[in-house]
This record gives sequence, structure tokens and C-alpha cells, in this order.
Amino acid sequence: MSDYSKSERNTVRRLPTRGSYDRETVFGILDAGFLCHVGFSDGNQPFVIPTLYARDGDSVMLHGSAASRLLGSLSEGIEACITVTHVDGIVLARSAFNHSINYRSVVVFGRGSLIENNEEKLKALELISENTVPGRFEDCRGPSEKELRATSVIRVVIDEASAKIRTGDPIDDKGDLELGFWAGTVPIETRFGNPRPAGNLSEDIVIPGYIDALNSPFK
Amino acid sequence: MSDYSKSERNTVRRLPTRGSYDRETVFGILDAGFLCHVGFSDGNQPFVIPTLYARDGDSVMLHGSAASRLLGSLSEGIEACITVTHVDGIVLARSAFNHSINYRSVVVFGRGSLIENNEEKLKALELISENTVPGRFEDCRGPSEKELRATSVIRVVIDEASAKIRTGDPIDDKGDLELGFWAGTVPIETRFGNPRPAGNLSEDIVIPGYIDALNSPFK
Repeated sequence: MSDYSKSERNTVRRLPTRGSYDRETVFGILDAGFLCHVGFSDGNQPFVIPTLYARDGDSVMLHGSAASRLLGSLSEGIEACITVTHVDGIVLARSAFNHSINYRSVVVFGRGSLIENNEEKLKALELISENTVPGRFEDCRGPSEKELRATSVIRVVIDEASAKIRTGDPIDDKGDLELGFWAGTVPIETRFGNPRPAGNLSEDIVIPGYIDALNSPFK
Repeated sequence: MSDYSKSERNTVRRLPTRGSYDRETVFGILDAGFLCHVGFSDGNQPFVIPTLYARDGDSVMLHGSAASRLLGSLSEGIEACITVTHVDGIVLARSAFNHSINYRSVVVFGRGSLIENNEEKLKALELISENTVPGRFEDCRGPSEKELRATSVIRVVIDEASAKIRTGDPIDDKGDLELGFWAGTVPIETRFGNPRPAGNLSEDIVIPGYIDALNSPFK
């Protein structure tokens, strides 16, 4: 897969050796999550809103209420910035200055466009649903005409993107290595817990296999 | 504690019953995390960058390299939007439409100002460090003059803020309750794993109590 081109906008300036622009890395980080933070500007005023997403090839798909500010703004085709961050651990160095975080993040730039075709909309909703709970979309009641109308779906074609990754041990100054402070990393894990049936669920409905399968660390 | 005033900017439009503006709720959500997504605009171009933070009274404190775009932009006093999101679980309803996420999020609006006084800078760095790993700041080598110069610290006074929270069971349409699909929630937990000593750590340095204490679900 080819690289995203580097511009003033997406070039990683701080610690550029941690930056990368290849699609494989960018896609891998996007595919490992389901919640993004979407930024858009209204004049000089920035807004950052958390929302679910899924990648569809070279696009990020978003959905939400047709009445929301986020979806309304994005459907006008303004510039968007979509950021996905996985925090993998805390990095404790001998010096306060060299403390860090292990993480994988992607910053995507592109413009939104509203999807009007119902078939395309359904496909995007299925992608977003499957990206969160694989197997669920076919095991629930699908959207009605009215529900589809109340839902906006936005495609943001990835115009530029960059990934930034930090892994591994702290990097200490040579002169600090003999100090007696503990140094190392503390991993952070995000995992699903045990499913909790709704209060109004019949007792004869058992937990489906694809929900039981969630009960493990994130992909 | 008093409420933040509601404006066009911070009013929760979608599902307004999930919104709240009281400082206690906003502060509680901010204090439960250490990673935020900061948005700022350069003309019509939004940027969303993940970074560490800590709350200091009515301000959010940020730090980073003096050479970074984020810190450089914020130090000019432009509008910032700081968003913190905790994903608490997945909500599975009988219908695709009523699926949701349990979450606690805060959106903060304010302008940044650069902290130039070294004592104030150190205090902010300690706050950010302690907000991530309580007990660490006094158990490592503190910042040198040179390191302090290379670090920018920004105070964003919270001008407006809103919190949004969803908890509990799915809310299904009455007509869907008899469908045979499983419904309920799947909690998501973020926790620290076992500390991993750095490869170059002397074997006689034991894991301090405050790091061992991390090994439990997030606050």
C-alpha cells in the first residue's frame, strides 16, 4: 500500500522518527478502535466531539442524528480532523522530563460528504456496528425507513493522514542511569467485562457467542 | 459549586437530558482521566491532538515541547476545545437504531496562555505528572533549567464546559421488546497491567508502592 503524502498539515514535527505515513500503519491503528474524536471549526472556534466510526477503504465513516451539530457541520463539506488514540502504557524514566506514554495514534484530514443513498447508508451503518461488536448487525432489528431518515451518515475520504507510535522502555539520559529510581513501563489494557442482560430481557434468551467472545482484550 | 453558563457553543443539543453544566460533574469527569484531545483551528483547518493534562481548579493544564505545533498555537491565545471521553460500555438494544455507548465525556472551551514563571511551570508539571501516576513526581529527578526551557506549559481557563453522560440499560421501543434478540450492556474496563522494569534497571531496585498500587481499575 502506498504512503500518504506529507504536507505542512500532516507532517509529524515533534519526534519525527515516531511518525509514519504508510497506509498499512494508519489503517491498522484505525481498525484497532471504534471511538474517534472529530474536530471541525466554526470560524475560529474549534469543536472536538467523540463518536463511533469505521474505516471503509480510504474513508472514515461516521454516523449520528441528523439533528446534531457534528453531523450538520460535516455534511456541509468543511475540513475535518479525525483523531484515534490508543494509550498502551505509561513510561517511567529516571527523570521527570523523559517520562512518556506508549501509544498509537492517527490523525486524519479530509472533508465530509453526506451519504444520501439508503443502500450506501445501510452499508455504512453495518460497517460502524460491525467495527464495534462484530456479529451484532444481523442479530438485531435493522433500521426502519423512519430511523434511516433520522440518521445521517458521513463519508470522510482520507486526504492526508499520519500515524505516531511510541513503544518500549524509557529512554534516559546517560547521566541519569545510575540514579536509584525505578524505571520501566506500566501497560494499560482496555477490555470488555462480563455482559449484563437488560433488566427487561427474558431469562430464556442466552448470551450469543459473538457477545461472549468480546470478553477479552481489545484487538 | 456553581454551574457553567449555557451558550450556543456548549449547549448539548442531541439528547439534552444527558447534558449537564455543573462544575462538580465536569470536574469529576476531568479528574477521572489523564489523556485529552485538544482541538484548535488554523483558519478553517481543525487539528485534534491527544495529550496529557491535569485540572487545576477552573483551568486545564497542558504541557509539551516548546517546538510543537500544539503548544505553539495554544500559546498564541487562540480558542481551544479540550475533550475528555471515558467509554464505559457498549449498549446493545433489540434494534440497531437504539444501540448506544455508555460514556462520560466533557467538552471544555477556553483560550490558552503560556506560563512563563518557572515556579508556576514546575507546579503545573507536578500536577500533570501526579494526575497520571500519583507519587511519581517526587520519586524521580526533577526538571533542570534547560529541560524547563524546552517545555511549554499552557493554562486553559475553562470559559464554558458541558458534560454528557449515558449509563444503564438499552432503551428499546415498546414494539421491539418481544423480539428474541439478546439485549443488555457490555462494560469496558481500562486498567493498568503489571509493571515491567526497564531493561537497564538494576535488579536491586524494587517496584515502589505507588506503582504497584496502579495495578487496579482506573479511578
